[in-house]
Amino acid sequence: MAILVTGGAGFVGMNVVEQFLNDGKHVVMFDRLELSKSASAVARPLGSRLETIVGDINDAKGIKALFKRFEIESVVHAAVVTSSVAREVREPKGIVETNVIGTVNVLSAAHAARCPRVVYLSSGQAYGKTHDERLPLFEEISPSRPDDIYGISKFAAEQIALRLGELCNLQVIGLRLGSVCGPWEFDTGVRDMLSPHLQVAQLALRGEKAIIPVTEVWRDWIYSRDVACGVAAAVRARTPGYRLYHLASGMDWQNTFATWCSMLQEAYPRFSWRFASEGESPNVSHRVQRDRSPMDISRLVNDLRYKPRFAADAAFRDYLEWIRHHESFLLETDESQRNTNDCLLPMRS
Amino acid sequence: MAILVTGGAGFVGMNVVEQFLNDGKHVVMFDRLELSKSASAVARPLGSRLETIVGDINDAKGIKALFKRFEIESVVHAAVVTSSVAREVREPKGIVETNVIGTVNVLSAAHAARCPRVVYLSSGQAYGKTHDERLPLFEEISPSRPDDIYGISKFAAEQIALRLGELCNLQVIGLRLGSVCGPWEFDTGVRDMLSPHLQVAQLALRGEKAIIPVTEVWRDWIYSRDVACGVAAAVRARTPGYRLYHLASGMDWQNTFATWCSMLQEAYPRFSWRFASEGESPNVSHRVQRDRSPMDISRLVNDLRYKPRFAADAAFRDYLEWIRHHESFLLETDESQRNTNDCLLPMRS
Repeated sequence: MAILVTGGAGFVGMNVVEQFLNDGKHVVMFDRLELSKSASAVARPLGSRLETIVGDINDAKGIKALFKRFEIESVVHAAVVTSSVAREVREPKGIVETNVIGTVNVLSAAHAARCPRVVYLSSGQAYGKTHDERLPLFEEISPSRPDDIYGISKFAAEQIALRLGELCNLQVIGLRLGSVCGPWEFDTGVRDMLSPHLQVAQLALRGEKAIIPVTEVWRDWIYSRDVACGVAAAVRARTPGYRLYHLASGMDWQNTFATWCSMLQEAYPRFSWRFASEGESPNVSHRVQRDRSPMDISRLVNDLRYKPRFAADAAFRDYLEWIRHHESFLLETDESQRNTNDCLLPMRS
Repeated sequence: MAILVTGGAGFVGMNVVEQFLNDGKHVVMFDRLELSKSASAVARPLGSRLETIVGDINDAKGIKALFKRFEIESVVHAAVVTSSVAREVREPKGIVETNVIGTVNVLSAAHAARCPRVVYLSSGQAYGKTHDERLPLFEEISPSRPDDIYGISKFAAEQIALRLGELCNLQVIGLRLGSVCGPWEFDTGVRDMLSPHLQVAQLALRGEKAIIPVTEVWRDWIYSRDVACGVAAAVRARTPGYRLYHLASGMDWQNTFATWCSMLQEAYPRFSWRFASEGESPNVSHRVQRDRSPMDISRLVNDLRYKPRFAADAAFRDYLEWIRHHESFLLETDESQRNTNDCLLPMRS
């Protein structure tokens, strides 16, 4: 019995795969990308329990074939295209196809194979415009007003997944993720919004200078290893009480970014950082213009017994340690992926 | 200069096409279906201003070609698949492809051709679950919680259309329609929810007996000719103040269905009707289980100077007159479309 992780070679997918392998599970990783060289090196010791399949989420037959070839007990559907404004204009259809049609493909295949559980990784972006007052959002109660094609497609895919679950007697759990940073983040070519944490880490590794925005946009940050724990909890839950859960840290990371920059500077003395002066463009950006309201996580905590482990400080310490051991991964993806992937966009500022 | 009406051979599309032809406009009707024989007979006198093109909304190239072949000044995008539960389970992908990807195709082609205006026909189903208290819904203020694949796909397509309009400098207007009945309704094979008004009309024409539900599900009924007027107002508006409008009658049609049945019985004496007894299954259904809240139409009335002309009584008189002149259309589609279209589903009760 194996767990299928779609988008498994991507940022969140890698964390999920690693978590399951560490838990002793068999994992089928499905992705349009090959596992990068350094990621393969890390996965090798666990390799006998990891199958990597390169394929496209839009290929319904290919997805169906996975369920014939492997005995899949659960699916974590993480395959997705995030989007900058440039991508929205250039390839709206590609975003919708991967995010929505891809999800229908996965659900249909799971249903046909009578796979009992699908965990769909949704996003806080499904809420769209949220209040500046930072009032917490609650699942089902807070309305969704997604306002970009990414958010619209995530909301649609999540709701279709839940609806098909209901109609097809398939246990579907939707997890709305906060903004993620941490291990395995890299530029896959379909992630237009890299975290500022990764952006400065890349500058640090190259010994460059970071100019960061003075005002920190409020985000519901969650450390990627905590995401993996939350996903594992959703896969494990025998009788989940709900179909939709927030997956965020539940902690306030506001104004911690300078701390991260300082920690990097200590570890990489050739790197330096400062706040942008008035009128100056930062070379690190939050990629988003707006604050978001925090997502309440009591449902996940109480019902799925998830406990976030990483406040900002702990996350940064752990991430720095991880970076030190994975410099080649960051540099490798920073260079090769960037140059080989023609989908890659200029960063959104 | 012509107006392109996608889904133009369908129920709402035909009303829109007829309205524009009567207004002296040139119309390009795009549909996957040929115009039916009797509809063609009606359209013939206006024929020199009507081009009918058979094609698929999922064929992006075909859509683009339309804009090359004709000089399109506005698009009314009405092509859609409505859905019963059976279709949701059987072909979720088909619903999403036609409703969402099809919309992206139309918007992309309009953008490429610098067509200035696209009117997207959305649906009150985009709201999903609304309160039973019948509190009115207001555009943007009332949250959308679509709960079936049709509603989810309509909401997604509408929001993507508005978003692309904003990004691509294209005037996109979304109209959320109430439940429509009236002229040109027929079973296209992709309309799983025929109005009860058409269902009894078909029984009346065949001289059969109608057994109708005792309780009338509350719906925001609007007469199809009023829909066409509202659409024309949206196409015409020089500087619309909003991007999203409700298009409903703004009138309460509750408990008028028996009146319609009685009018039919008077006109077709071989037909009779009665309420279902306790435990008896009606042979006419509302196809929906739930009441919906009414959509407030003041935005449309005040900003686009739309004035609904048909309260229930006036609508029924007009529809009866129309039916008398189009019996062959109703019988033709009732028989031939039903048997030739393999998508056709048993009616949802």
